[in-house]
Amino acid sequence: MAENENTNSERSVPDPVLNRIPLYLRIAEDLQGRGVETVSSRKLAQALGLTDGQVRADLVFFGAFGRPGVGYQTQHLVTELRRVVGIDRAQPVVLIGFGSIGRALTMYEGFEKRAFEIVAVFDRDPEKIGRPAGKCVVKDVSTLPEEVARLGVSMAILAVPAEAAQRLADQLADAGVTGLMNFAPAALKLPDHVAVMNVDLMLTLERLSLRMKVANRLKR
Amino acid sequence: MAENENTNSERSVPDPVLNRIPLYLRIAEDLQGRGVETVSSRKLAQALGLTDGQVRADLVFFGAFGRPGVGYQTQHLVTELRRVVGIDRAQPVVLIGFGSIGRALTMYEGFEKRAFEIVAVFDRDPEKIGRPAGKCVVKDVSTLPEEVARLGVSMAILAVPAEAAQRLADQLADAGVTGLMNFAPAALKLPDHVAVMNVDLMLTLERLSLRMKVANRLKR
Repeated sequence: MAENENTNSERSVPDPVLNRIPLYLRIAEDLQGRGVETVSSRKLAQALGLTDGQVRADLVFFGAFGRPGVGYQTQHLVTELRRVVGIDRAQPVVLIGFGSIGRALTMYEGFEKRAFEIVAVFDRDPEKIGRPAGKCVVKDVSTLPEEVARLGVSMAILAVPAEAAQRLADQLADAGVTGLMNFAPAALKLPDHVAVMNVDLMLTLERLSLRMKVANRLKR
Repeated sequence: MAENENTNSERSVPDPVLNRIPLYLRIAEDLQGRGVETVSSRKLAQALGLTDGQVRADLVFFGAFGRPGVGYQTQHLVTELRRVVGIDRAQPVVLIGFGSIGRALTMYEGFEKRAFEIVAVFDRDPEKIGRPAGKCVVKDVSTLPEEVARLGVSMAILAVPAEAAQRLADQLADAGVTGLMNFAPAALKLPDHVAVMNVDLMLTLERLSLRMKVANRLKR
C-alpha cells in the first residue's frame, strides 16, 4: 500500500487519475513489446476494470493522444506517458537508511529499468558509513542537507525508523527535495509542495488480512 | 503503492473503507498509548482528512462502537478493530522468494509487532535452500504446495521475479492460500476468493514522479 497523504487543494488532477497514469503506461509498454501498434480506450479500460470514458477522461488531463475510431498509437502513447510521468530521462534519487529495507533497495534491479538512479545513500550508524551500497558508498547522515543541496536531487527515499522520519523529512524538504517515498510507519507532515508516497508494509498486510476476513464472512 | 486488483462483485464493503479501517486502528492505538480514553469521530476524521459522517459510516460497517456525545472508547475501539482486521491473534504467513526483498522482510521487525509471523520461507536457488532466514530455514520451492497445505497457512507473500509470479500464485491458491501480498511487478489473475495486495515499488516511484511534475507545473 502506498498513498498520497498530501491534501493539496491547488492540485488540478485527482489522485485516482494520478495513480492510474503509470498503469496505462505499463499496459502500453507491454503492447509495444508485443508489436501491437494501436490500442483502443476500451482495451485499456478492460485491462484495469474501468469504463472507456474514464480512460479517455484520464488521458485528456495530459493531452488527448487518441483518435476516434483508431485509438492510441502504442509507441506514441508510451513516449508521451513516459514524458508525463517523468521517466523519459534518468531521475536521481537519494536513499536515507541502510537497514534491511534500504539494503534491499540498493540491490533491487527495478530502479534502473524505470530510469531511477540511487545517487547517494546515507545512514547514521558508524559501522555502516563507508560501506559499499550498490554503486554508492554509505555517507554520514549528518552530511545529508549539504549533500542533497550539492547534488540538486529532488527525490528521496526514506527507509529509517519511525522516530527519525519526521526530522529527516524536514531536512530533505529544506534542502530542496519535493518528492519523498516513505517506508517509515510515520504520518509525515510536510509543506504542500512536497509530494509523499507512503509504503507501509504492515498497513498493507493489515488491509490484506481485513479483505480475507470480509471475503470469508461473505462465504458463510 | 498497493491496491486490491480483485473485482469481487459480491464484496459488501467498498475498497476505500477497507483501506481506512487499519488507519483508524493506528490512530486509536496511538491515543491509547498516550492514555486518551475516548475519541470522537471528528477527531478521527480530522486525522485522516475525512468528514465525521464518513468515519461513522465506515465504522458502522463493522458494528457501531461509538456513543452519541461520548464518541468511541479508545481501548474498546482498539480491541474491536484488531479483531476486525484479524490481528487479535498471531497470523502465520509464508514467504516465497529469498532475494533482496525477501531477505529484508525476514529481517524486518514490524511483522511481529503486528501479529504476523513468517513461518516458512521458500526459494528455488540451491545456494539459498537450507540457509537461515529469520527464524526459518529456506526450503525448496518445489515443496511449496505440500508445505502450505501441511501448515494450513492462508496468507502468503510473493517476492519473486515477475515471470515466476503467476505460476507460484496459482500453486498457492490451489494449496488453500486466500490472501497474497505480491511484490512482483505482475498483474496476477486469481480466483475471486483470493485477495491480492500488490506492492509495486517502481509504480509507487512513478506515481511520486508524476505528482512532482504536476505540482511543479502548477507552480509555474
